[in-house]
Amino acid sequence: MTDKKKGGFTLPGESGYEQMTLAMAEKWGADVIRDSDGTVLSDEIVHAGYGIYSTICVIRDHNEWAAKNPDKLQQTFLCTPPVVAVPQKILRIGLLDAFFAEQFRVNDSEAALKYWEVYDRTTNQKLDREKWSYDSADGSVTIHSVTLFHKYTVSFLAYRIWEEISMYNHTTNNWDKEHLMQIDPRYPETQEYLLGWMKNWCETHPDTTVVRFTSMFYNFVWIWGSSERNRNLFSDWGSYDFTVSSLALDEFEKKYGYAMTAEDFINKGNLHVTHMPGDARKKDWMAFINDFVISFGKQLIDMVHSYGKKAYVFYDDSWVGVEPYNGRFAEFGFDGLIKCVFSGYEARLCAGVDVPTHELRLHPYLFPVGLGGAPTFTEGGNPTLDAKKYWISVRRALLRAKIDRIGLGGYLHLTEPFPDFCDYMEKVADEFRLIRSFHDAGKPYTIKTRVAVLHSWGALRSWTLSGHFHETYMHDLIHINEALSGLPVDVCFLSFEDVKNGALANVDVVINAGRAFSAWSGGDAWKDDELVTILTKWVYEGGTFLGVNEPSAVEGYDTYFRMADVLGVDEDTGAKVCHGRWSFDVCDAAHLIPEGAGIEAKENRYLTDGTAKVLLAKEDQPLVTVHDFGQGKGIYLSSFQVNLENTRMLYQLIRYAGGEGLSGLYMTDNLYTECAYYPASGRLVVINNSDTEQTAAIPTEKGERTVSIAPYDTTFIEL
Amino acid sequence: MTDKKKGGFTLPGESGYEQMTLAMAEKWGADVIRDSDGTVLSDEIVHAGYGIYSTICVIRDHNEWAAKNPDKLQQTFLCTPPVVAVPQKILRIGLLDAFFAEQFRVNDSEAALKYWEVYDRTTNQKLDREKWSYDSADGSVTIHSVTLFHKYTVSFLAYRIWEEISMYNHTTNNWDKEHLMQIDPRYPETQEYLLGWMKNWCETHPDTTVVRFTSMFYNFVWIWGSSERNRNLFSDWGSYDFTVSSLALDEFEKKYGYAMTAEDFINKGNLHVTHMPGDARKKDWMAFINDFVISFGKQLIDMVHSYGKKAYVFYDDSWVGVEPYNGRFAEFGFDGLIKCVFSGYEARLCAGVDVPTHELRLHPYLFPVGLGGAPTFTEGGNPTLDAKKYWISVRRALLRAKIDRIGLGGYLHLTEPFPDFCDYMEKVADEFRLIRSFHDAGKPYTIKTRVAVLHSWGALRSWTLSGHFHETYMHDLIHINEALSGLPVDVCFLSFEDVKNGALANVDVVINAGRAFSAWSGGDAWKDDELVTILTKWVYEGGTFLGVNEPSAVEGYDTYFRMADVLGVDEDTGAKVCHGRWSFDVCDAAHLIPEGAGIEAKENRYLTDGTAKVLLAKEDQPLVTVHDFGQGKGIYLSSFQVNLENTRMLYQLIRYAGGEGLSGLYMTDNLYTECAYYPASGRLVVINNSDTEQTAAIPTEKGERTVSIAPYDTTFIEL
Repeated sequence: MTDKKKGGFTLPGESGYEQMTLAMAEKWGADVIRDSDGTVLSDEIVHAGYGIYSTICVIRDHNEWAAKNPDKLQQTFLCTPPVVAVPQKILRIGLLDAFFAEQFRVNDSEAALKYWEVYDRTTNQKLDREKWSYDSADGSVTIHSVTLFHKYTVSFLAYRIWEEISMYNHTTNNWDKEHLMQIDPRYPETQEYLLGWMKNWCETHPDTTVVRFTSMFYNFVWIWGSSERNRNLFSDWGSYDFTVSSLALDEFEKKYGYAMTAEDFINKGNLHVTHMPGDARKKDWMAFINDFVISFGKQLIDMVHSYGKKAYVFYDDSWVGVEPYNGRFAEFGFDGLIKCVFSGYEARLCAGVDVPTHELRLHPYLFPVGLGGAPTFTEGGNPTLDAKKYWISVRRALLRAKIDRIGLGGYLHLTEPFPDFCDYMEKVADEFRLIRSFHDAGKPYTIKTRVAVLHSWGALRSWTLSGHFHETYMHDLIHINEALSGLPVDVCFLSFEDVKNGALANVDVVINAGRAFSAWSGGDAWKDDELVTILTKWVYEGGTFLGVNEPSAVEGYDTYFRMADVLGVDEDTGAKVCHGRWSFDVCDAAHLIPEGAGIEAKENRYLTDGTAKVLLAKEDQPLVTVHDFGQGKGIYLSSFQVNLENTRMLYQLIRYAGGEGLSGLYMTDNLYTECAYYPASGRLVVINNSDTEQTAAIPTEKGERTVSIAPYDTTFIEL
Repeated sequence: MTDKKKGGFTLPGESGYEQMTLAMAEKWGADVIRDSDGTVLSDEIVHAGYGIYSTICVIRDHNEWAAKNPDKLQQTFLCTPPVVAVPQKILRIGLLDAFFAEQFRVNDSEAALKYWEVYDRTTNQKLDREKWSYDSADGSVTIHSVTLFHKYTVSFLAYRIWEEISMYNHTTNNWDKEHLMQIDPRYPETQEYLLGWMKNWCETHPDTTVVRFTSMFYNFVWIWGSSERNRNLFSDWGSYDFTVSSLALDEFEKKYGYAMTAEDFINKGNLHVTHMPGDARKKDWMAFINDFVISFGKQLIDMVHSYGKKAYVFYDDSWVGVEPYNGRFAEFGFDGLIKCVFSGYEARLCAGVDVPTHELRLHPYLFPVGLGGAPTFTEGGNPTLDAKKYWISVRRALLRAKIDRIGLGGYLHLTEPFPDFCDYMEKVADEFRLIRSFHDAGKPYTIKTRVAVLHSWGALRSWTLSGHFHETYMHDLIHINEALSGLPVDVCFLSFEDVKNGALANVDVVINAGRAFSAWSGGDAWKDDELVTILTKWVYEGGTFLGVNEPSAVEGYDTYFRMADVLGVDEDTGAKVCHGRWSFDVCDAAHLIPEGAGIEAKENRYLTDGTAKVLLAKEDQPLVTVHDFGQGKGIYLSSFQVNLENTRMLYQLIRYAGGEGLSGLYMTDNLYTECAYYPASGRLVVINNSDTEQTAAIPTEKGERTVSIAPYDTTFIEL
């Protein structure tokens, strides 16, 4: 019963494969054809009546200009690994010894040198400038008058001389092209050059209807090392280290009235990972960069618009400073946002942005191999199965939030030996359009219980932590977000400030999930007594605080979890190792804990006063507990790993918290299936998230419906 | 070839079993006969020509006097579990609700009330006295003018009305006797009474040659709860909470010029566990109590001496304040110290005390059941096997350090149905006397490498942490201590102060082992840059720092382990979650890591600069690493569990650190065996620590010796 329609599909065209391009455009119902990195579109394709996407990356692909302006390349602070001062040995530190030589060049300009810092890391003290000297001949710093057996580091500015995505593709995909450099639009000369280039680009691409920016100016942070045993020294999709330059630092000081130092970025060699709470200076810097990216970005977008073209942004790679969730994103004036998706949470991330068009780039990309190096569109690959697996992750999120467009990327001709893939994508495109039509008619049914995820970043990091799932799998919260992304539940993301400003009024369940001191648990934010009091009151009056792993953990109080009295569970950091533990029986909780659900145990968790009910345990370690507190509840999970069973467990716990019962309208009785109901269109969509056939019964307002669904498949029912 | 001799053996005699008592005394070579808790010695035994031990417990067994002096019972601070203030509900806290009613009685005297404290535990602030009131009628505190949704606790003084060992025996061993109360010698009236009682006791026990004190005045801390699901609220063999009274607090203030508060003991409800570093106030209190225990204890001991009797102390139960390792123990004037032993480290603990006679009370006790409730001298028990297992733990320590006496406790008649046990004990007694004779001739051979265990307590907690192995098994260090107790290595225990005062001059390997912030790792002591610098220099010049689990861990520096640069290993607390990790190959280390050795992996450990050699790993987690640093080494173990294989691994790592090679003089080639060589007597003792026959070859100065040894057995070789 899938309605075959055209539209909402972006096809990667390929010159030399014109016939195939147009045939696939027809088959998949494409309305737009795009180029890809490494492909061009021939006139035949461009003039076939489709919209034309062109991808541009503003800051690379200017090697000629970059070569002439080596002082306007993008930069970063780097910090040398600590070296211990020992007797009879001059302490001479080669600045780039530990770093990938092809990625960096020391910036020893006068403007940069004033920001360099040498630290005694044993005492955490900065050395006076006269205690060290720089030798530009070999790029080393010599530290004079050391304290023996203390250790020292040098923080310095370095130009990045190889754009990181290009670098990655060269080394991983064996590219053999010129190394691209990235220029920094912070410099007025660069801006002037780029505005001219953009103008010229628009004029020389009359057929392009949509300019796709990849993304704006600053890449996520990716620092490589000199050793093949540790090539990836640091990588964080949410860090701002790659936005720095002496000019930016100078301008920041003028604007904010205080100077950022190298140490503000280096942070004892930790840099600032998104998974840790940011301090006020980091937040100022992020705002400062965002301000710049909007102001110069808008000039480029306005120019694109002035040529009658639309401007979309690809939310990846050089997205730093774009920040689609900080309330200012609309100022750019983008017409669309495109997100490549492996997971459901990424679809929700895209869907939630305030922009006219939301588009997903599906996986697998039309490349010979996937991200991990496994074959896709090449011998030994099974791209259809890959597509099904990605689709079941993304589809459940699409049922909950409207996405306007989907599409593919890569080399279309690679699909030729895989006709079943082409057929499957036809089915996917049709399903997508049908689901979109239901959203167009009206919102899907959700349960009454509303969920808020509470962490340091709040809405700024809605749905994502920092990058893709496989990069953040060690954090409980990404598993929680992924589970939530397909549940029929309203979800919002709150910061601790939001809670203090009254945001709990519209929330029934607050989830705080993560390792102690992480941004996701909250760290020092929990030292705020008012925060704790507000949350405690809110639970007492009927809310549910659902804590995972080390929720609300902070040192200095009678409990490690500040919400321990609500949860009925706490963690012993060692100070209570001589204290007895409440023994417990696991309650009969077959209703709340589905068969097959299970999470990892964590050490030293214990029941505070013995009144929490343990629903799941591993030996004497509580895994899932519920604790009544006034009219509300504390629910504790020792960790969370996303899978079908645990996703259903989380859903049942949320329903339980909201008093919605174990089953109810539009809830399948089979955890391997889920469904969404669209009241305005009277349609029920049932999905099979498993690789085997499933049967599910669904209570609806018009009685129960029972369906059998093929592996991975979707069923549409008209009520 | 064991020499049969008499002496050095204390036999528990039993009235009504005179014949057996004397027969066993002959068989086991006893020179002393003792009574036990629950047994008496008849005249026939007392006058049979043996020395006579009598056990006394100074502070209990005075119920008549105690009943008349209820204000002179021993006390403790207790803290009620936190209660959250909620609307429309008066915050009334029943002080003893959470505690075992038979153990405590509220001390609401005026002198005590002034020490009570009510805390807002949300803000960590003490409430002014006028904000709460006490109702003596129902023993509750009502808190007025609360901040809603904050949580409150009451800290108060309570009398302990049931001596804890008596309480334990009643509830665990179903005793049905009068509840004993413990009186506090802090009060002059108690002292006067006890001196009179002691005098009378001496006069009425003319046959007693040795008075065994069990132990002095203050029990280790053991607080019981009201719920059977959590009976044991707190238990710590090294804590001083049971030494408190309003009088002691008043006297402390006079002496030290500042007042201890309830919170100094309650410590946010954590109390002060020995496994955490103590603060200066706690150390002052310990010194204050020790001073008192010595001064009044000495009066009792002097009196015993004045009657021509010896005074021994049993190092258990009421040992708090005795502190055999603080440098003042000799002031008591004890003639002997007796330690009950399950483990090798307890034997070393006894052997190392500055006292004329060191005696071990062996296990199993002659009781129907053991500590865990399993049958011993009753149907289903196998006391001979139990004895063998305890003996192999203790024996290896006896080979290293001289013990003067051994003995048993309990009901002798229970051994009657177990003649093989009686035969085995005869063998043990003979072996013990033979080993002792070797020690008398001269010290056993040790390797050159000297080991120091470094922690917050230093020598004060030599060998033990706080109590028996089964109470402290969760700490790596007790496993390390147990392994060390039988190695041919000089071992000392150092505090961080000792290191700063030059103690490393006599040490080759420093072991720092434990969980972050524990007393065993060191916590804030590692914030001392001088300490770190001294240790770093010492390693650079040839020492080895051997860190286990979270050695030298503290927050606030570029590494979590302050000795990370020496170890080449650190732990990521979350701030480095986006940092790459050095990949590694496990080095061929068959020589250092014996087959079967293995320790638990710990999360988030990583190689700092990739130069540490990984000797053992679990997947990508390093378990054992070695790292060259100058002339010295850093060795890291992710944890340590004592067993025969890991003990050999530790020994080999220590030898490696000291450059002593993989094999050498007086080292067996079979890890299930160990040996000790006594140069002065020319005797080699080879022991089989396993339950199967073993063959071992031992290089000696007179060539290799090869022996086969029966399970658990000992072989004596004359070189």
